[in-house]
Amino acid sequence: MDNLSMLEKYADLILKKGINLQPNQNVILKSNTDAMDLNRLIVKRAYELGAFHVYVDIGDDEISRLHLSLAPEEALEKFYTYKIDGFTQMLKEDAALISIACPNIDLFKDISPLRLGKSNKASAIAGKEFGSIISNQDVCWTIASYVTDEWARKVFPDLELSYAKEKLWEKVYEATRVNLKDPIKAWDEQSSSLLNRCAKLNEHNFKYLEYTSSTCNLKIELVENHVWLGGSGKNKNGVEFIPNIPTEEVFTVNDKFGIDGSVKSTKPLNLSGVMVTNFSFDFKDGRIVDFSAETGYEVLKNYLDIDEGARYIGEVALVPFDSPISKTNMIFENTLFDENASCHLAFGRAYPSCIKGGDKMSEDALSEAHVNRSLTHIDFMIGSDDLSIFGIEQDGKKIEVFKKGNWAF
Amino acid sequence: MDNLSMLEKYADLILKKGINLQPNQNVILKSNTDAMDLNRLIVKRAYELGAFHVYVDIGDDEISRLHLSLAPEEALEKFYTYKIDGFTQMLKEDAALISIACPNIDLFKDISPLRLGKSNKASAIAGKEFGSIISNQDVCWTIASYVTDEWARKVFPDLELSYAKEKLWEKVYEATRVNLKDPIKAWDEQSSSLLNRCAKLNEHNFKYLEYTSSTCNLKIELVENHVWLGGSGKNKNGVEFIPNIPTEEVFTVNDKFGIDGSVKSTKPLNLSGVMVTNFSFDFKDGRIVDFSAETGYEVLKNYLDIDEGARYIGEVALVPFDSPISKTNMIFENTLFDENASCHLAFGRAYPSCIKGGDKMSEDALSEAHVNRSLTHIDFMIGSDDLSIFGIEQDGKKIEVFKKGNWAF
Repeated sequence: MDNLSMLEKYADLILKKGINLQPNQNVILKSNTDAMDLNRLIVKRAYELGAFHVYVDIGDDEISRLHLSLAPEEALEKFYTYKIDGFTQMLKEDAALISIACPNIDLFKDISPLRLGKSNKASAIAGKEFGSIISNQDVCWTIASYVTDEWARKVFPDLELSYAKEKLWEKVYEATRVNLKDPIKAWDEQSSSLLNRCAKLNEHNFKYLEYTSSTCNLKIELVENHVWLGGSGKNKNGVEFIPNIPTEEVFTVNDKFGIDGSVKSTKPLNLSGVMVTNFSFDFKDGRIVDFSAETGYEVLKNYLDIDEGARYIGEVALVPFDSPISKTNMIFENTLFDENASCHLAFGRAYPSCIKGGDKMSEDALSEAHVNRSLTHIDFMIGSDDLSIFGIEQDGKKIEVFKKGNWAF
Repeated sequence: MDNLSMLEKYADLILKKGINLQPNQNVILKSNTDAMDLNRLIVKRAYELGAFHVYVDIGDDEISRLHLSLAPEEALEKFYTYKIDGFTQMLKEDAALISIACPNIDLFKDISPLRLGKSNKASAIAGKEFGSIISNQDVCWTIASYVTDEWARKVFPDLELSYAKEKLWEKVYEATRVNLKDPIKAWDEQSSSLLNRCAKLNEHNFKYLEYTSSTCNLKIELVENHVWLGGSGKNKNGVEFIPNIPTEEVFTVNDKFGIDGSVKSTKPLNLSGVMVTNFSFDFKDGRIVDFSAETGYEVLKNYLDIDEGARYIGEVALVPFDSPISKTNMIFENTLFDENASCHLAFGRAYPSCIKGGDKMSEDALSEAHVNRSLTHIDFMIGSDDLSIFGIEQDGKKIEVFKKGNWAF
């Protein structure tokens, strides 16, 4: 099958499972000039599948870079918000959102962390309502990745570019099950399996998780009434969707103030185009009280300083070390893939749907329940082949959850 | 000089003369995926020249075509207007607007004229305030063209594509004076010359223009207190700008109800991607009472039916047959160029700045002065090498204005 047919299957997966497109629905497609063949296929298939109007927002890496490096500093913080406001309005009126991630890992490596920080913070503030609609899962949304030149070069630096891209597409199709005869069916099965896993974890209703490995020594308290989610989500109208393609994780929300110990990252993290490597966090009462990084320290610091909540964890996610993505035996250098090959945490905002009735709770009520309300949300990987996790039930009973990096039950 | 350097000179011309970028000004750049190299150069140079924030809106021809051919009919008329509303707000707060035209002449040739008509009308209505800010010249704006594959193929169908594009860029640089050593200075001279021409025409203060040629027999009444404009315009703050690159025309406003006779087009017209050829109009009391076209009749009809004013003329423009663009001796198949190689008229909206004090007149006052207030504005070419124009002054004195297609004075 040629790449165009595969790309069309990918577009179909994004529309049918990713956002689960409904008849006469509006769709927002946020993408990039790199991905025009996929963008066009998504628009074409969306209309053929019954979309009402597809609003396409095409960004460009080089223009973003020029803006961040050349615009006056004040312009990084002060800008017209017509676009994010327009999208927010559409989401409130039940539009679905597709984001195509076009990795370009070193894009902002020459931008000063101070300027990056200002710009990210201002964007987070302008997009607060938008971000909360997404993290509340009010609407159907999905993120999928596109193979860019930069990504392929990063992953296969020794291969000729066109061959590197071809090979990376193969891996992407494998990890997203697009290479299977019926990807839609395969995703239905994958969703069921993750939902079963969640059901078991929800039965145990753990109070704490205790992580131990060569790089990790953490005790994490889970929020009372927490819910484990994974695979597909449900929007406020009960329509199922898959927020991340691929996804192998189950996740829930920790008590914002209930983490102690220390952890070292097991994969590098790309923050606004800057690689942060070999970083570690020390926690006391949930707060990151100390941190270090081999590279990218300043950018990491700026992210942790976005607001008070950025210094606290908001998501706890479990992924077996032998997940299909792990089994591709490669580092994708792309959080969307690598987070699905490794247990991870996120600093910043929690998903309200990870607490019972959370999507109907006010900001104040969520804060009172110790649910992190930061503006930011950044995943980082902590999984390894020697990771052991025990869950402590409310009555103190200790259950083995992870053994040598994989599910123990 | 390589094409990148020439393209940078072109970007500079667009910024320095086109919109005459002011320090700390916001800029809207409306362009297309075809023109990314030029778009990026404009953004880069804009910031280097002191812009505050450049908002880039990147459209895509294929996505527009998919939308027009596949979206439900209702979606062509009903859509979110966040983008045009946002741009309108920016213009009200003194942003400048750059539009890069990326000709793709046959793009919509397979779209039903009915669907095209609905979409165009709805866009015109949504963009009413935006259009009126532009036509009132409240802000600095400019349109310049980019050489696309489709345009180059249309103009040089017998040449290999890369050579056709190279050759068309040469012609574009020639017609826009970018090939000269100092294009900015050349444009200053060109503006002065057009302004002098306007001053003379304004002195004569003609009541009528009488056109005669083998394809034209028209008597056109000019509005009382009309003003001839050309070259650079001035925005509401008195900042000079050049709305069209290139420009060779001087133009004014006719009395909406004061045209009688008939005229045949001397160049084809591209309407929404459909070629309208060999069309003719019969006028009675200003109204197009009859029309025909060899091809594109339906699309032309839809444009003329957008509103009541679309059946009336709103602009009268004079261009000598031996203008520099004419002298390139080619048909550019692009109104921005071809209108500057030929006398033309436009049906639809007039420029209020073509009447004394017009930019401060209300819609009602403009209508009472017989100034066309349609939502649309479409130029069409009527110049030829045998065109003769006489001007009749208020006291009946007859002055020769054009002789054998060129200025008589």
